[in-house]
Amino acid sequence: MNSRRDFLQKLAPLMALPLLPKTLEACNAFNTSNYDGRVLRVAIMGLGSYGTRVADAMRACTKAKLVGVISGTPSKIKDWQVKFNIPQKNCYNYENFDSIKNNPDIDAVYIITPNALHQNQAIRIANAGKHVICEKPMAINANEGVEMIAACAKSKVKLLVGYRMHFEPKTLEIIRMRKAGEFGKILFFQSLSGFKIGDPTQWRLNKQLSGGGSMMDIGIYAINGSRYMIDEEPVWVTAQETKTDYERFKEGIDETIQFQLGFPGGAVASCLSTYNMNNLDRFFLNGEKGFAELQPATGYGPIKGRTHKGELSQPHVTHQTMQMEEMAGIILENKQPVIPVDGDEALKDLKVIDAIYLAIKTGNKVDLKL
Amino acid sequence: MNSRRDFLQKLAPLMALPLLPKTLEACNAFNTSNYDGRVLRVAIMGLGSYGTRVADAMRACTKAKLVGVISGTPSKIKDWQVKFNIPQKNCYNYENFDSIKNNPDIDAVYIITPNALHQNQAIRIANAGKHVICEKPMAINANEGVEMIAACAKSKVKLLVGYRMHFEPKTLEIIRMRKAGEFGKILFFQSLSGFKIGDPTQWRLNKQLSGGGSMMDIGIYAINGSRYMIDEEPVWVTAQETKTDYERFKEGIDETIQFQLGFPGGAVASCLSTYNMNNLDRFFLNGEKGFAELQPATGYGPIKGRTHKGELSQPHVTHQTMQMEEMAGIILENKQPVIPVDGDEALKDLKVIDAIYLAIKTGNKVDLKL
Repeated sequence: MNSRRDFLQKLAPLMALPLLPKTLEACNAFNTSNYDGRVLRVAIMGLGSYGTRVADAMRACTKAKLVGVISGTPSKIKDWQVKFNIPQKNCYNYENFDSIKNNPDIDAVYIITPNALHQNQAIRIANAGKHVICEKPMAINANEGVEMIAACAKSKVKLLVGYRMHFEPKTLEIIRMRKAGEFGKILFFQSLSGFKIGDPTQWRLNKQLSGGGSMMDIGIYAINGSRYMIDEEPVWVTAQETKTDYERFKEGIDETIQFQLGFPGGAVASCLSTYNMNNLDRFFLNGEKGFAELQPATGYGPIKGRTHKGELSQPHVTHQTMQMEEMAGIILENKQPVIPVDGDEALKDLKVIDAIYLAIKTGNKVDLKL
Repeated sequence: MNSRRDFLQKLAPLMALPLLPKTLEACNAFNTSNYDGRVLRVAIMGLGSYGTRVADAMRACTKAKLVGVISGTPSKIKDWQVKFNIPQKNCYNYENFDSIKNNPDIDAVYIITPNALHQNQAIRIANAGKHVICEKPMAINANEGVEMIAACAKSKVKLLVGYRMHFEPKTLEIIRMRKAGEFGKILFFQSLSGFKIGDPTQWRLNKQLSGGGSMMDIGIYAINGSRYMIDEEPVWVTAQETKTDYERFKEGIDETIQFQLGFPGGAVASCLSTYNMNNLDRFFLNGEKGFAELQPATGYGPIKGRTHKGELSQPHVTHQTMQMEEMAGIILENKQPVIPVDGDEALKDLKVIDAIYLAIKTGNKVDLKL
């Protein structure tokens, strides 16, 4: 495992070569585990609190390694260089990061910036020939998502979206049970998703950066959860917005939205997305033969869950560690996750978000074609 | 306590005399407890399964006593006479029950018949000068409810509706906590109400008798619960119906309805009413400072509940025993329940049901004026 050629020969049967970026390399000098396979070398773009969480979690990864940063704040870059042992040659700012194209030591960029910046940044990364991992929401509307998917396809790089729950063990156990028919025909899903948002000056409450309010940030868990829990694509949506604080939640920033989804098999989903209350975070899946509940369902953990058969006992994992480990497998080995995390998957959520905003604007039920 | 006069003299300061029916008597020969106060002597109209449940539960009542029956089935009357020691003179059928007017040994009639029959039966009972206790829904629409209220007012009899949860200890503890401000400003309520209905030939699935589907039967718990948990009257409603089984749930019989209520203080309620799934029956009240959950919330018990302060430990009571005991207090002593159970209270639920059906028919949000 000492050369690109050796590596590619060994892995060739397992992967789809056209999707590998030109700069992909097998090994990473920083990786100290016993693992001697390929390592995905990742740069993080956006060094905020969630970026820090991902970086810390990646310390426990075997297949993924933080090797670079992209930030507009030189002092943050310096701090991260020290904390994560990042060489100067792997540090970029928002003006010069297109030159990452010429850096053979970075395979992928994880974009963890405000939502409204994702599209442009992702396209630039794709054009630089690097795999794109983008935090959710992938973009602020479906049109942007389509453009991102096209750019990544054109550059033959992968586009993955940070759906960390897709790798969470209790979530996956429920999916396994559903596939095994243990809940019978699925009839209902519910997600209560939200929290009381703090600092009123944060970018999440600035439409120019966030593209929307709670729906973009936390409501998307309800949309996405409805889809992977029921395992169908919704065919209609209705939605109702309420706002109690017009100062904090300005025009275009939704505070609370209830929405309902209808599925082809007759199941319905009832969802709440909010920035104005805590004590939520519950998934509930109901079928003819049984049910599953996750509460908390999507927090950083530990997730708690039960079904009609009893408590779920799968161990807690750090979601971001698991996500990055699995995404490395997807990119390097063409591994197929149980629940997709690619651009097509994320685009469906954006289409539902678009439809929810339209349903609120018009007051009408909106048909969906995902 | 041997004469009507002695009794009235003793109780006069406690009660509103104009509301007492002429036939009210203080004691009941069948009452064997140490209680020596007044007893409400009740006839049950409709000897089905729920009527039987109420009758059995009334055995444990001190202030209320089953003394009569009204039924269209002579064999049922005979069975009940034996089981509950009911004299022949207190037995009626649906043709002759207006003559209950001349029976001084019956104070009130509890109507436990199919929904669509309530209005006519309640008015006849009111015209006979007897107090009316009516199972929920009080009627199948608000217009009928208005007529029932008017008839009872005209005859100066009370009209109470079988909202048994209004007397349930864990429910009342949550109400107490809310009034004490322990949840802070109320932001959200949710009710998941429903069950998979059995026998397709039952009256509940016959529009002529039921007046509607799951909404009439179980969705009303969600409406009513929203109102007493939030302690405001909703100002708008939106609703979405879905149907998967057109054979079982014929025209006018709703299978599943999701509905949302908006309240003046900004709180919202998210509710589900269904006849097509089990594993539901959850109330969730969320405020700025804490939350309460009941699950099961409205079944016959035991109810289970918790709040942000921990599990609720109030003892289980047989709901129907408690209800009848408290209703005797309301009728005999003009006792004021924590949550009203009168016709005005029930009318508000009927107005919401009317609005939900209108919202489904039109696809529009419907304003409410309760």
